[in-house]
Order: sequence, then structure tokens, then C-alpha cells
Amino acid sequence: MPDQQPLKVGILGATGTVGQRFITLLSTHPWFTIHALGASSRSAGKPYSVAVNWKQTTPLPSLIKDIVVQECVPQAFAECAVVFSGLDADVAGDIESAFRAAELAVFSNAKNYRRDPHVPLIVPLVNPDHLSILPQQQALHSPPLTKGFIVTNANCSTTAHVIPLAALEKAFGPLDALMVTTLQAISGAGYPGVPSLDIIDNVVPYISGEEEKIEWETRKILGGISTSDTLQEFDMHADTPLKISAACNRVPVTVGHMINVSLQFARRPPPSPQQVCEALRAYQPDAQLVGCPSAPLQTITVHDEPDRPQPRMDRAFQEGAGVSVGRVRQCPVFDIKFVVLADNVSIGAATSSIINAEYAVLKGVVQ
Amino acid sequence: MPDQQPLKVGILGATGTVGQRFITLLSTHPWFTIHALGASSRSAGKPYSVAVNWKQTTPLPSLIKDIVVQECVPQAFAECAVVFSGLDADVAGDIESAFRAAELAVFSNAKNYRRDPHVPLIVPLVNPDHLSILPQQQALHSPPLTKGFIVTNANCSTTAHVIPLAALEKAFGPLDALMVTTLQAISGAGYPGVPSLDIIDNVVPYISGEEEKIEWETRKILGGISTSDTLQEFDMHADTPLKISAACNRVPVTVGHMINVSLQFARRPPPSPQQVCEALRAYQPDAQLVGCPSAPLQTITVHDEPDRPQPRMDRAFQEGAGVSVGRVRQCPVFDIKFVVLADNVSIGAATSSIINAEYAVLKGVVQ
Amino acid sequence: MPDQQPLKVGILGATGTVGQRFITLLSTHPWFTIHALGASSRSAGKPYSVAVNWKQTTPLPSLIKDIVVQECVPQAFAECAVVFSGLDADVAGDIESAFRAAELAVFSNAKNYRRDPHVPLIVPLVNPDHLSILPQQQALHSPPLTKGFIVTNANCSTTAHVIPLAALEKAFGPLDALMVTTLQAISGAGYPGVPSLDIIDNVVPYISGEEEKIEWETRKILGGISTSDTLQEFDMHADTPLKISAACNRVPVTVGHMINVSLQFARRPPPSPQQVCEALRAYQPDAQLVGCPSAPLQTITVHDEPDRPQPRMDRAFQEGAGVSVGRVRQCPVFDIKFVVLADNVSIGAATSSIINAEYAVLKGVVQ
Amino acid sequence: MPDQQPLKVGILGATGTVGQRFITLLSTHPWFTIHALGASSRSAGKPYSVAVNWKQTTPLPSLIKDIVVQECVPQAFAECAVVFSGLDADVAGDIESAFRAAELAVFSNAKNYRRDPHVPLIVPLVNPDHLSILPQQQALHSPPLTKGFIVTNANCSTTAHVIPLAALEKAFGPLDALMVTTLQAISGAGYPGVPSLDIIDNVVPYISGEEEKIEWETRKILGGISTSDTLQEFDMHADTPLKISAACNRVPVTVGHMINVSLQFARRPPPSPQQVCEALRAYQPDAQLVGCPSAPLQTITVHDEPDRPQPRMDRAFQEGAGVSVGRVRQCPVFDIKFVVLADNVSIGAATSSIINAEYAVLKGVVQ
Repeated sequence: MPDQQPLKVGILGATGTVGQRFITLLSTHPWFTIHALGASSRSAGKPYSVAVNWKQTTPLPSLIKDIVVQECVPQAFAECAVVFSGLDADVAGDIESAFRAAELAVFSNAKNYRRDPHVPLIVPLVNPDHLSILPQQQALHSPPLTKGFIVTNANCSTTAHVIPLAALEKAFGPLDALMVTTLQAISGAGYPGVPSLDIIDNVVPYISGEEEKIEWETRKILGGISTSDTLQEFDMHADTPLKISAACNRVPVTVGHMINVSLQFARRPPPSPQQVCEALRAYQPDAQLVGCPSAPLQTITVHDEPDRPQPRMDRAFQEGAGVSVGRVRQCPVFDIKFVVLADNVSIGAATSSIINAEYAVLKGVVQ
Repeated sequence: MPDQQPLKVGILGATGTVGQRFITLLSTHPWFTIHALGASSRSAGKPYSVAVNWKQTTPLPSLIKDIVVQECVPQAFAECAVVFSGLDADVAGDIESAFRAAELAVFSNAKNYRRDPHVPLIVPLVNPDHLSILPQQQALHSPPLTKGFIVTNANCSTTAHVIPLAALEKAFGPLDALMVTTLQAISGAGYPGVPSLDIIDNVVPYISGEEEKIEWETRKILGGISTSDTLQEFDMHADTPLKISAACNRVPVTVGHMINVSLQFARRPPPSPQQVCEALRAYQPDAQLVGCPSAPLQTITVHDEPDRPQPRMDRAFQEGAGVSVGRVRQCPVFDIKFVVLADNVSIGAATSSIINAEYAVLKGVVQ
Repeated sequence: MPDQQPLKVGILGATGTVGQRFITLLSTHPWFTIHALGASSRSAGKPYSVAVNWKQTTPLPSLIKDIVVQECVPQAFAECAVVFSGLDADVAGDIESAFRAAELAVFSNAKNYRRDPHVPLIVPLVNPDHLSILPQQQALHSPPLTKGFIVTNANCSTTAHVIPLAALEKAFGPLDALMVTTLQAISGAGYPGVPSLDIIDNVVPYISGEEEKIEWETRKILGGISTSDTLQEFDMHADTPLKISAACNRVPVTVGHMINVSLQFARRPPPSPQQVCEALRAYQPDAQLVGCPSAPLQTITVHDEPDRPQPRMDRAFQEGAGVSVGRVRQCPVFDIKFVVLADNVSIGAATSSIINAEYAVLKGVVQ
Repeated sequence: MPDQQPLKVGILGATGTVGQRFITLLSTHPWFTIHALGASSRSAGKPYSVAVNWKQTTPLPSLIKDIVVQECVPQAFAECAVVFSGLDADVAGDIESAFRAAELAVFSNAKNYRRDPHVPLIVPLVNPDHLSILPQQQALHSPPLTKGFIVTNANCSTTAHVIPLAALEKAFGPLDALMVTTLQAISGAGYPGVPSLDIIDNVVPYISGEEEKIEWETRKILGGISTSDTLQEFDMHADTPLKISAACNRVPVTVGHMINVSLQFARRPPPSPQQVCEALRAYQPDAQLVGCPSAPLQTITVHDEPDRPQPRMDRAFQEGAGVSVGRVRQCPVFDIKFVVLADNVSIGAATSSIINAEYAVLKGVVQ
């Protein structure tokens, strides 16, 4: 890749919260160059700096200011080797489908196609090998495709906890039960998102649809792909019927989802807390080994201090591309409990899409 | 009781967070009249209004302002029928012991004697019958006592969840597993307590000693008292080996501890979410039935809205004497999960001590 | 009034933030009984408990739950002696005008008619005598009215500072310069209002239109009414050309506007800080003297502590009907500076409307 | 400087809030290399990573972790060309004096010597020329010094507003009146600093000593140095008797002081808001022109958006070394009003000391 020309990329939903993070991250990317920005017709035709209500804590990159926002139609993105989607779910379905049909490679944060049996749901630090479903996705499309496809990445909370879970399954074999309680940042709800009257001096023990997403997506990501006849199928963690219960809370934190995890391994006796720490620290996902430039140097940082990780202190480490784990200890009910923290807007959203695309480039899936 | 003279009561640790809440609640109490206030030697000798850094959101009651603060020595409280203790743990052990030895009836929020095998640990809306251990406590004291004793109430988080748990055990029999994740208010740490730099735009996944307290205290409270020979013993929930795992988090909320609970019943099949809701709503603890004036009219308020209870919205209901439950639903791992909210300074601390004392008065334990 | 039947009242904009506060306050009012609730056509026809997204920290009064919400048309409110309006400005103009034309007495929080030369802008603890303009408002109406009128109350920030200013002008004569900087609560923006991403760990130095309102409304309220020929006219503080500069900030506080005030008197030498404190404490507005039941017992509470008033500590005092002043000291540039705090939803909005109506009842203006 | 060896520097109060920011900034400094860290005897002898309660949002630099903390005695810092002090005021007086007497060059954040008639109070983007008092400071010392001196930088709030004030005085001549109201971040109070119970859902209209500092320090910084006989003297803005009134508030913001400024120029007519904006944008302080590496590229960023600057959005720009100004508009009482934002821990503290030292190096004052 280093020898090639920069690849042109487009961003759908460019004015939204995730779209803004895409811009921040991609404006200095070593391989990708922002070529087209798509948003709603209300924004289309305006320079990006006029269309956007910029809410990042770093300034809008000056090279981006004057790019004229486009409608989200494939023609405007025809030259893009990769199209990143930060679209809202209410429009993502049709638009992403149209882009794929136009032979564009779509890497999406939206939830619409995550449960599609031919669309991979990829947390890049866990299961980028699920890209192998793409030929089938293209072949079964009507008409069949040669370049177009959709790759999704996971819900921001799912992404956070599935990374250490993958490290533990790799080291100690399958999990069989998992109880997670989230404390999720307001940025996860986009902008304007959570009204301040609902969250100052308060927490809200409910996020619509979130618990179901965590319980379902975790199985697809941690599971493998089985082949029956010639059809590939996501096995949804068939090796062990993985029971998962999630309880989701919104907390007055700007960025950084924190998750309390208790888990049980299939194997007896289970690993000790110290063995768990070692396995987490040693975890090197394929995306890191093959050289994705946005992958973190250290995928999982394990804290020894009793009171870490914390959102405000740890979210920005490694530009939010890794996850932090702490308080690894025995669970009196299950085997092990610990705390995970991830930047919900970076590795929880835009960074995951970007590493997925980097991996696809390295594997020749994106041409 | 209504026919009697008001009972004189004293407050130890009167200038602290819990002490201030005692004053707020007792200044309008129908039976009790504040007679003596005790604090450290730094405060002793000063009018209360001078000694205290008043942090309640209601004004300091004017009748209290000029009461001269005393040292925490029994002589100064000799006329008190009841002594409430909001002392810090580092001094509560010796002081409460000296007060008991001086034949004073101590109702304490401190943790020091909670694990004492002869001291009852009472959440008044759950197990006031544990007062029956007091004759043994007095008899085994050296020298034996006739009026002095110590009654403790529980940790603020324990108190919150144990009330619905008691309602469920009453209706459906013993629990056998319990997983709780707390989101606890800063007021639980007293004043000055949590530095603002640690908690604004942040959550902290650790509260020293809290998880152990929840795991241990819950068993003592929900358990019964067994008698071997002539010695009474707390059975620590002997009917079922109750497994409990707690994960505690501090959140930027002023008042109101929220707890995510997942639980499993011993009995199969377990009750449905609807049956659970009905049992929670129907729960009438003895303290309510016998007429303790500070007991809430409705012990457990069950919310039907999907996003309640919430600390800011629900903590003040019934002056913080009841608890709120919401999101009762099936747990994919255990049987049932729900959310509990309680005012950690009221039912979680001062109100519990007060109802305990009211109950003791009604039962003739306090003379 | 005590001998009369309760007066039926209606509430326009009943599902909004101010409307909810009206309901909370009026549900226990000694004179008024809630008879009709009006909201948008989206809510009309539904029971109030279904139509509303209740955001008060006290429960929805049970008597109100089943009242069916009406469209905001005069017929539905024909029996109401008083109609309170918490309508948004974009609809308040037409609706309030129609209600007045239908001979209804409207007490409005909306800004639409505050600058109307025939509509009084009344802070009830300052200038209820401005009701004297109402006969002219009715006479000039086409067709002339006998019972219908509109009375407005002021912007929430204006209300807060104008109360101590009125006390000082009463004691020491006219002011000639005023510099105010506000720290305003999020509830002042209604619901959903301020997005949490804009205000957590942040302050916003801008509130659209607010500075102009403070600068303009203060003059109308503190001014008198002059008569030229037979026409009455608000003199806009004609005795002294009162210069006012306001700077408005939004802060992450749920309820309670705080204002830093520096002021200069016309008279030389100016009063001392101590004289100012005495005048503030002694201030007894007419609404209090004539016995309006919602008027505070103490209009201005002056704090001696160096760090008070504070929103969380002082906003709820007297149910938010009074204002708190503190830090009265000399100003090195002007004469005196101090801090004011007021509950922006109570005296800053609903409570002001209610006291205005009580005063109008006592004066026979409402029949 | 680029050709020289790195200069060894020491940090006093290295474990405190300002000390930690010194370490963060200096660990990558092009000229300075951290040689010695000083703290209280409680920390002395421990590796820095053990002694410190690290509260920065970037990780502790690994090169620093193993430096053994020293007592704050001159011998341990004998090799340091520059000693930065982030000491608390209760110990800074004696320690800094001892370091100066030992011929060390001290650049201090502490308030102790700011009012000393021979110690310059320097905001590096305003008055580094005040270094010219140092020969007199050394000559009058007993015994006279050749290398030792103390340079102070200003209070964090003073620093923020004095930068645009200096730009305006440079462009339009002296100011004669100034009214400032601050909204100050909790980090300004150090750690543990402000208790969270005092500031969540709250603002506090008082910061001990802060208003006096702003009113006094502003005059020393904006003033010149006069010479009577052979003695140099700070003239405290003798050209115009500059009246200043400050009102200080603490707000729940982690980092970033915001200040509402209204000001009056001596000259009539005053400049227009547009002229003010132009002068602010054009301001290039000497520290920038001579090439101090920590000086910001743009000293004053003027925002055109109506609601900026905001602490969370703008504090980190240019690593906190510049200031942001917005809402420049006419003041109905004085001439001009605007809002200033500065990172109180960077340009408001550590960065100012560092630029002062850089300037001193470039001018040959530090050898």
C-alpha cells in the first residue's frame, strides 16, 4: 500500500456525529484522501463548513471546509474506492443498498444490515476474517456484483466488550455466559441526542434497542462461519450456546462507554484473574499484525490501579483506537469480572469502519 | 406512642452528611425531639450553626441553630432515650461501644458493628424482627446491660436492593444467585468526599470496600436467626447458599443510588416479570403495618415507563423513604432483571436508623 | 377571597416545561382549581397523563392525570376566570389574542406581548400597579372588551434581578447604570432544550435574544406610567436614563438562574453595602402586603455567608417564590455589586403568573 | 538556542496539578530536559510514578516514571538552568526564596512574590519586557546575586483576559474601566480542590482572593516600569487610573476559564467592534516574534460564531497556549464587551512559566 496513490474515499452522513469523527480521522490518513461528502438534501450544495454544526473538540480541518456537500447518490461518489457511512438508520437502508448496487464498497456504522445473513458484522480487532462472506454477498446480489458490497461494524457498546472477550476466547476457549452492564456516554446518541435536562445530575437506565443489539451482535461477531453445501453461514457462536444478558444505562459523560462484565468460561477450571490479565495484554489481532495503520499499537491496555479505566482519563489514549480493561478479579457468581472502557466514537464507530477498510485494502478486497 | 411525651434523642456525628440528614428529618418528627448533638472536639462547645458546614438543600431548622455541640461522650447524652450515630468508621467503634456500655440505645449507620454476631443489621423495611437478638447482646455484654445496645443499619447500596429482594423472597421463596451493578451518587461518600475533578464528565468503576459490603450484608439481612442450644445466631441465608456478585461505580449524581439487578430464584419455574411486579407492589413490611411514622406509604413503587426510575426524578418521592423499581423484565442468563433506585441519604442511611428506632419504640425495646 | 368558591382556571401549553410547573403549583392552590388544560392538536383529546412527558421532580398530581387535554381555543376555556399561558412564542401571539378577544383574562409567560404599549409587563413582587393600564387595553381593543385582557410577566432572568433592583430604587432612588452577567440554568430553555453534548463539562456564552430582553424589560418594569392627554404610557424609567448591559451564559445547572450585578445609583454618595443589605431585607412588596397566597414570606433573603446563594442549595427555598441575594459589596467601578439567585421556573415563570392573577383577583380586576 | 545542548530544568511541586502539566509539556520540549523533580517530604525518595496521583488525561511519560522525587532543597537542583515552581502558596514563599538565594533561576506560578516590587509579574504574551527589573532584584538582594532570581506569572484568570486587553491597549491606547465576570473551571482549584457535592448541578459565586488578584495583577501587568533616581518601579498603569471590578464564579467545567469582559477606552470615540476584532486578530506579541517555541502560532483566535468560544470546544486549541475571544459587540454601558476563554492549566499556568523561561533564554537572562 505505501507505494500506491492515495485512495479516494467518500463519507455518507458527513455532517453527523460519526461523520464528523470520520472527517477528523481521515483528514490525516496515510492512505485515504477525502474526495466526497454526502448528507441530506438540506445540506447538499453547501460548502461543508456552512452545512455542518461542527461539534468536535479539534478544529474543522481547513482542507475540508470548502468541499461542497453532495446528495447521497452513487453518481457523486463514483470515483471513491471506499465509501464510509455514518448515516442514520432511518435512511441508511436504502442509500447503502443503492451504493452497493452501483458497485461501491460501503463500510457502514448503521445498524440496518448488521443482521443480514450475507453481510459481515466486523469489529476489526476481532473478526476481520468475516470478510470472506463477501464473494457470496456479491454473487447472491441481483444482478451479481464484482466490486460492490456492504461491510458493517458493530454497535459501540458491543465493540467495546467484544474485544477483550475475543482475546479470552482465543486464550481459554469458548465462553458460556456473560452478564454486562453498560454506562454509556451521551455522544453515543448523536446530536442533539440526549436532552441535558434528562442527564445532568442523573442517569437513565434505558437505551432503546441497545440491550438486544449487544446480546445479538456479540454472538455473530464471536462466532465463526460454517459452510453447508456451498452456502456460508454465520454460526452465531455455535460451539457454545452463549447466554448474554445486557443492561444499558446512559450517564453524563461526553465520550467513553464503560462496561461492567461478568463472565463464565466453558472450561473448568477457569483461568485465574492473573492469567486473564496476561491473555488480555498479549492479544494481538490480525488487523494489527498485517499493518492496518489505524490499528492501535496495544489493543488492550490492562490497568493495575484499582480505580481505572475511567472515561475522562483513558478514552483518548491511542486516539481512541484501543480499549482499556481494569479491575480484573474473581466473580463470586461467574468466573471473572472486569471493567472495559472504549471511545464510543472512535473504536466504537468511525475508527472501526476505517480499520475494516484498511484491512480490506491489504487483503485486496477493495480494489 | 401518640399519648406519650416526646422522646429525647441525640445525634452523634451531627455535623457530617448523615448527621445533617438526621437533623433535617428529626426536626419535625412526631415522637422524637432533638436533645443533644455530638461531634468532634473541634466542633464541641460551638453553637451548631457555627460548627456545621450545612450542605442540605433545605435550610438549617432554626430550633437547632443554637444547640451547643457536645463531645461524643455518654454523659452528655444521658437523658436521651435514643442515640443516632452518623459517625465515621474511624471513630464509631469506640464511641458507640462506650455509649452502649453506658446503657444507651444506639442506632448506628457506621459499618463497625455490622458484622458483630450479636448486633442486628437491620433494614427496617426488611428485617426489624432481628431486634430479637438484643437480649442476647445485652446478656453477653460485660457487665450485662439492661437498656444499652447497638442496632446497625446497612450500607446504602445494600439497603436499596435488599428491599425488593425481600419482597421477592417473601412471595416466591429463596433466591440462589444475584448479580448487581451499582451507579452510586457522590453523596454516598460524604463531604468533601469525591473531588469534582474525579467525577465531572466521568464515572469511576470502584468504591473501596463497597462490593464486599453488598455481598456480605445482603446475606445477613435476608437470612434468619437460628438457635443452637440457647445461643441465637444469624444464619446468613442458610436456606439457600445465596451467591452474590457486586460491581460498584460512582457516577456524577448528587443523591440517589441506582442498581441494576439480575437474579435467579431457587424455585423452578421462576415467576414471570408480571408476577414479580405484582409482588413488589404488594409488599407491605411490618414496619409499615405497625405504624412507624417514617415508613413510606408505598414501600416499593414499580414504574411502568421504560426509562424509570431515575435519580433526579424519583429520589425525593415519599421524602426518600421508599424505593423505586423499574424495567422488570426477563434476564436471558438468570430469571429476572430490573433496576432499583433509592435515596442513599434517606432510606439508605438516616431514615433507616429512624424507622429502626420507631419500631424499637413500638415494640417496647426502647424504654 | 377565602369565602368565595374556588375560581376555575385554565392552562395553555399545559404539557410544556412551564405548563407542568403551573400544574404542580396550582394543584394545591387555595383559590384556584384547574379546570381546563390546553396543548397542541397532537395532545388534544388525550388524558393529560398520556399527553405529557412529565419532567417535574414531584409526581404528576393524581387529580390531573385523567383531565382530557383540549385544543387551545377559547370555547374550551369559557368557564375559566383565569387562563395561564405557558405557550411557546411561535404560537402564543395568535392564541392569546383570540382568548382576550373572547373576554378571557390571560396571564402569560410568553414574550409576544411584553413590548405591547397597552400590555403590562408585571413582576408581581415589583410592579403589580401596572395593572392600571388594563382599562385602556380593553377600551382600545376592537371591539372594546369588558373582561378580556392580557397580562405578561417577564423573562426569567429579568425577573430575578429586577426584584432587588426595585427594593434598592425604593430605598435609595433611581439607578443610572447596571451591568449584569447571568449564569442561567438549562431548564430556562424548555424541553428538550439544550442538548447535553453542548453543556456537560461546558458553558455557553450565548442565549439567543436574552440580553436584549433583559436590557429592555428591566426599564419597562422599573419605570412608571405617565399620562399624556388621556393616554397612559409606560415611561421606561424616564426619571433616569437607565443604562443596562447584559451578558448571558448557559451553565450546566438544572434549575436556578444566578446573576452577577454591578450597579450605580443616581444619588451621591451612594448607600453602603450594609445599607443595601438592610434595604433588601426590609423590602415588602405590595403583593405580599395585600395577601397574595403564593407570595413568599420573605421576598429577598440576604445571605451573609461569602459563597451563597448557590443554585442547588437555595433555589427551592420558599418553593422558589422568593429570591436570594449574597455577596453584597462595593464595586470598584460602580457603587455596589452582588449576586442574585432565583428559581427560573417558579418566580421566574409560573409563580409570577400566579401571583399576578392572585393580585388581580384581590384588586377586583378578575371577576 | 537550536545549536545548544538541552538545558536541564527542575520542577518544584511536581506531583501537584500544575506540576503534572509542567511534566506533560516539558517531556517533549525542544530545549529543556527534565532533570529534577521536587515535592514534599512525603513524596521524596519515591519514584515519580509511585509518588504521584497522576490526573492528566494523557499518560505519564515513560521517561519520567522512574525519576526519584527530591525534597525541595536547592542542592538537589544545583545543575538546573531553570527551576519551574508549581508549589502551593503555603510553602512557595520560603522555598522559592531559598532557591533564588542559591543562584537558581525560578519561574513560579505561586502567588507569593507577585506583589513584590522587585519581582516581575509576567504574562509572556503581554509583558516579557518586565524582565528588565531582574538586575535590580539581584542587586538589592542580600547578598547580591548574579544568576538567581524569581519571575512570577499571573493568576490563571488574570492571564486570560490580560492578553486581549494588551492587544487593545496596543492598538487603541489605554483603557480606563473594566468589568469582568469569570466562569472558572474546577482545575483552577487544584486537586482534590472543589468537592463534587459543591459543584455538580451548581455554580459557586465565590473564589477566595480571586477578585482581588484580578483587580491588582491586571494593573501591574498592563502597566510599565518607571525610573525614579536609579530605582525602577512598576507604575501600575499610571497613564490612566484603570478601574477594574471582578466577580468570580466557579462552574462545573474541568478545564477552561471563561470571562465576560466589558471595557471602556480612554480615547473618544472608541473603536468599533470590527476594529476591535481586527486588532485582536493582528496581535503578535514579542514572545512569538522572537521565536519562543511554546508560544502559540495565533495568540488570539477571534470567533465569528455567536456562541463561541466554549471551554469544552476551544480549550485544547494550540495545546492551550493561545486564547479565544468571541461575541465582540458594543456594550450599552461601556464601549465594548466580549468573551475570553483560556486553558487555565496551560497558558493560565504551566505554559506561561515555560514561555517566560524560553524568552529569558533567548534574551540571555538565563545562562
